[in-house]
Amino acid sequence: MSLKAHVDYVLGLADDALVSAQRLGWWISRAPQLEEDVALANIGLDQLGQARALLAHAGRLEGEGRGEDDLAHLRDDREFRNVKLVERPQEDFGVAMARMLLFSAWQTELYAALRSSADETLAAVAAKAVKEVTYHADHAVHWVVRLGDGTEESHARMQAALDAEWPWLAELFEPADAGLVAAGVAVDPPALRDAVLARVEAVVGEATLQVPQVDDAVGGGRRGLHTEALGHLLADMQHLHRSHPGASW
Amino acid sequence: MSLKAHVDYVLGLADDALVSAQRLGWWISRAPQLEEDVALANIGLDQLGQARALLAHAGRLEGEGRGEDDLAHLRDDREFRNVKLVERPQEDFGVAMARMLLFSAWQTELYAALRSSADETLAAVAAKAVKEVTYHADHAVHWVVRLGDGTEESHARMQAALDAEWPWLAELFEPADAGLVAAGVAVDPPALRDAVLARVEAVVGEATLQVPQVDDAVGGGRRGLHTEALGHLLADMQHLHRSHPGASW
Repeated sequence: MSLKAHVDYVLGLADDALVSAQRLGWWISRAPQLEEDVALANIGLDQLGQARALLAHAGRLEGEGRGEDDLAHLRDDREFRNVKLVERPQEDFGVAMARMLLFSAWQTELYAALRSSADETLAAVAAKAVKEVTYHADHAVHWVVRLGDGTEESHARMQAALDAEWPWLAELFEPADAGLVAAGVAVDPPALRDAVLARVEAVVGEATLQVPQVDDAVGGGRRGLHTEALGHLLADMQHLHRSHPGASW
Repeated sequence: MSLKAHVDYVLGLADDALVSAQRLGWWISRAPQLEEDVALANIGLDQLGQARALLAHAGRLEGEGRGEDDLAHLRDDREFRNVKLVERPQEDFGVAMARMLLFSAWQTELYAALRSSADETLAAVAAKAVKEVTYHADHAVHWVVRLGDGTEESHARMQAALDAEWPWLAELFEPADAGLVAAGVAVDPPALRDAVLARVEAVVGEATLQVPQVDDAVGGGRRGLHTEALGHLLADMQHLHRSHPGASW
């Protein structure tokens, strides 16, 4: 089991949560109801909390003195390890909820399994996070069913949103490093596939929507291959920190 | 004491908090440190919580069936009653902290006094809120002192930020409706002036900054006279709700 693979695995999960938090942040003040503003802000804060714990852990494993802020603010997009599902803009409320449905189903299964990771820090983060993402999943289910099984327009828009997000689901199930899996540190993503799909497809049915028949998008996020959107997101996120190294300003 | 004056007074405090929350939301994902992202998000959530409680109260007082979302999302800028201090963009971290210093000092004195308002709902909201804004004030003090008493550059930028925000302080002390004050419902803003200035000037001194010698900006926010910036903020905030009335989508 290589240290680099271990660090990269933890960074992948950290970056998923960090980038997801940033995309949720866009919604603060733009949700259709004040109650939803509060909900999305809290979900974003949960994701940010998971990201911080995982980044700090990755930095300690790496042993080169990088802390959470170094890892969040001083890496280029090619060094980010998140899946592409979370990095694209989500400035349509249906898209935001479709994405949350897919991503939270995956995070719920992932963190549930990681509670027994041989990496005890990872197991502890997962034990706390699984309770948070279970709430996120409930929230997404509520909206997807409400909009899918709502008016004719909301149904059509929710279906379009699901169609738009679905191609990016496959990347979540790309195999992890075999050595990490054998050592019991990582959960192998293909092993989560059936449970995640069962969760999501049950909601799609309840929402009177159709499971999209679409081709999978190209992966590569775990290896640092990203869409242009991540670069823009990081520019916003990192600008102030990089302008004033060491944050003395 | 007129009902309209009572509703407008509560709306003024609600809108201060609501608009402040939206401006803080801009900072989510853009702060210099992840810890600061979390802090600003939580401060924004506190403000949003105060706004929701006050908007709901204003709606009930008014008695025309408008709830928090109607009041937040279906009023035009001329109907907003917030002070101009909170509505202008704050895309400079020093400006955000200077503004938080002034605004939280005012909110702290205001809510402390409102705990004994004859309006029992307002008194209850104030009793909860005063604890929150005391934390916001501590947070602002930390940064203003750190940056003011920091490097030569951070000192100069913090002074510039304070100079930029200071003219907007005076509007906070414009007199409230005399009937409301006489009835013990409202706190008269001029009565808060000395205490707020004492708080702020002590911090300015500790931060080795100068109290700005600048002319007061023109008020009018409490009467619905706003800068162009509020219109843009409301367009973002209200777009989705207005596009789908009743929020069935």
